[in-house]
Amino acid sequence: VTAVGKVNLAEKLAQFDEHWAPRIVAEANGQEIRVAKVKGEFVPHHHTEGDEVFLVLKGKLRIEMGNRSVELREGELLVVPRGVEHRPVADEEAHLLVIDPASARNTGNVRDERTRDRLERI
Amino acid sequence: VTAVGKVNLAEKLAQFDEHWAPRIVAEANGQEIRVAKVKGEFVPHHHTEGDEVFLVLKGKLRIEMGNRSVELREGELLVVPRGVEHRPVADEEAHLLVIDPASARNTGNVRDERTRDRLERI
Repeated sequence: VTAVGKVNLAEKLAQFDEHWAPRIVAEANGQEIRVAKVKGEFVPHHHTEGDEVFLVLKGKLRIEMGNRSVELREGELLVVPRGVEHRPVADEEAHLLVIDPASARNTGNVRDERTRDRLERI
Repeated sequence: VTAVGKVNLAEKLAQFDEHWAPRIVAEANGQEIRVAKVKGEFVPHHHTEGDEVFLVLKGKLRIEMGNRSVELREGELLVVPRGVEHRPVADEEAHLLVIDPASARNTGNVRDERTRDRLERI
């Protein structure tokens, strides 16, 4: 049985400043619940492992998908389906909760200098 | 491919007043993302289908598990592992985001007057 302890999202986010480097804060049913600080334009990518959920905790996030774009504010979430190319963009720093299959790499099918093959558990 | 549309959690919560009757607002990787309004003491129960995630969006939630109790405030989450008996209690109305396997019934292994065999998708 997994240890049962609560997670304060703001406290977790206060533990790091790095952008685009999600930290794992909880696991459930093969999914990882991650928090991330983001700013600027990320690399367009997709995930073959599964769907990805973005929930904005602070600030704003734009998710560009081909010729579409979805703007998320605090308290808004988006599910990006498996295989759909997306590019997260934040004009100012934003704080996110992200849910991915445990195996999913942050840059999906792409490898660049922001790729993290192993995410830290905090 | 699932439709891609954003979900504003506060707008979804404004659509109903019923307590302990979660609404489904999104799906990802076999999990349902649900929102719920709760107040009072729920029935102690467990889920055989999988783990359950509680994230408090507004107010406070106490989750009693045997002789332990975890108090969650806004921005705090808890994963209740599969099979662990838990009793959610909210002294005042609280608003929650809850993540469950798509098959999971709100009252888990218990059936009472608050059981919802089918949850509404809003």
